[in-house]
Parts: sequence; structure tokens; C-alpha cells
Amino acid sequence: MADAPTVESLIEANAGFYRAFESLDMAAMEDAWDAGDGLFCVHPGWQALIGREAVLESWRMILANTGKIGFTLSSIEARIAGTVGIVTLHENIDSRVGSERHRAGALATNLFRYDQRAGRWKLFHHHASLAMAPDDDVVVN
Amino acid sequence: MADAPTVESLIEANAGFYRAFESLDMAAMEDAWDAGDGLFCVHPGWQALIGREAVLESWRMILANTGKIGFTLSSIEARIAGTVGIVTLHENIDSRVGSERHRAGALATNLFRYDQRAGRWKLFHHHASLAMAPDDDVVVN
Repeated sequence: MADAPTVESLIEANAGFYRAFESLDMAAMEDAWDAGDGLFCVHPGWQALIGREAVLESWRMILANTGKIGFTLSSIEARIAGTVGIVTLHENIDSRVGSERHRAGALATNLFRYDQRAGRWKLFHHHASLAMAPDDDVVVN
Repeated sequence: MADAPTVESLIEANAGFYRAFESLDMAAMEDAWDAGDGLFCVHPGWQALIGREAVLESWRMILANTGKIGFTLSSIEARIAGTVGIVTLHENIDSRVGSERHRAGALATNLFRYDQRAGRWKLFHHHASLAMAPDDDVVVN
């Protein structure tokens, strides 16, 4: 069913991106990203990846090498500026790579464009960076 | 003189933001940022700052505590999506705090909106994060 380009559907699309990550399902991850050009992705501590091929290749690698990952999203701010959906949030991450368990926090800027044909928002820009203190790193003033 | 909302004037506005930083001039920094709401700023390793007051307060602190800073910008990608100007780049930073000299690299997502009255782009979103290898961290594919 098609969603309207509202802040609510934007927040839902953002949640869908993290569900795709948690599912470790590459098809779902591919579907979360926009099919067009201008794709940009920074994983925490990584180099910048530009273009759909480089971005999806990084996700293939990450999903294949992650045993289990869970996200609790906090401090979500979502707004629409013209045709761009802007979401910022704190990712509280609980993951397992091999037998090691990691807890980490990251700050993310996620940009979406509304795909008329699909009837939903698609991600085209993901910039995530390590944050000092999980769930305690947003100052509103 | 008013600039048209083109990719060229967007790149120039982005350069102006870094010149304001280099000048350590708070008035120039205030002028680079949009006067409206929805301001968002992440300095490398910092918490997220939301709102003009929190964002400008952080710049006051940074400018007051920086002896000298210089930026060489590389891997600049700029595009306009509707009313939003999106710039990504690598910041190659050379700074001095007290007697210590630092070289560092950061990746930045800078979002601008076009201010009709001022006739130029204004920054409303700056997300900078430490990057591993200065000037060697962008993969285009």
C-alpha cells in the first residue's frame, strides 16, 4: 500500500531501513535504498561510499559478516524540506560478530526521497558516526 | 550581490562556511547558518546539537578555543534536491590549540537551504565525523 509523503511515513521508512539491517536480508536492504543516483553512505569509521554499487557492496559485506544486530532508535528528529526527508537519530546498537558481543552508539543523518512509483520514501544518504555516550548525546536548545 | 540557487553558488556557500571557521570570526559563522529552526550540528566526536542556540553556543566555544585552523576541502560532491543543497566532502584539517598542532581528517554532510532574502544558501545541518585516512577515503563506484 502506498504511503503519503508525510513525516509519519518518513519515520516509518527510517524504521524500515533499520529493520532491513536487523533482518540481515540483502534484498530488504536493497529495497530500502533509492534506485537512482547520488547515493552516499558513511558507516561509522569507514571511508565515504558514493554510488549505488559501492554502497550496496558495503552492505553485502556487512550483512554477511554480522551474526546478529539489534537497534534501539532514540532522539529521532524527522522533517520534510521540499522533496527531501531528513531524519537524524541516535542508533543504540547491540551486535554480535563471531562470538563477540558489542554495544555501541552512533549518530546518523539519513536522507530520503519520495519514490512516487513505489509510494514510499527511499534512502539515498546515510551518514553514521560513532557517538560517545549511547542514548545520552543529544542537546536540544 | 545575490547568487542564484545553483550548484556553483552552493559550493561557494559551503566554502564560505569553512572560511568563516578559519577566520575564527563568530559573526561570520553566525551569518553562515540559517536563521530558522531545524538547525542540527555534530562536531567530530561530539554529541548532537539541535537548535540555533545550542549550535551557535558550540561554535562560540570552538572559535574561542582555537588558535589557528586551516581547511583543505577535497572530494566535494554538491547537488540540489528540490529546495535543499546537499554537500559532502572531506575536511583536511590543520589546527593549533594552545601550542599543540593537529592534523586530522573528517567527513562532512552539510545541508543548506536557499535564503531568498539574503540571496544565498545558508547552512542548517552539519554532520562531521572523524575519518581514518585524510584525503584518501572516498570510494566512487
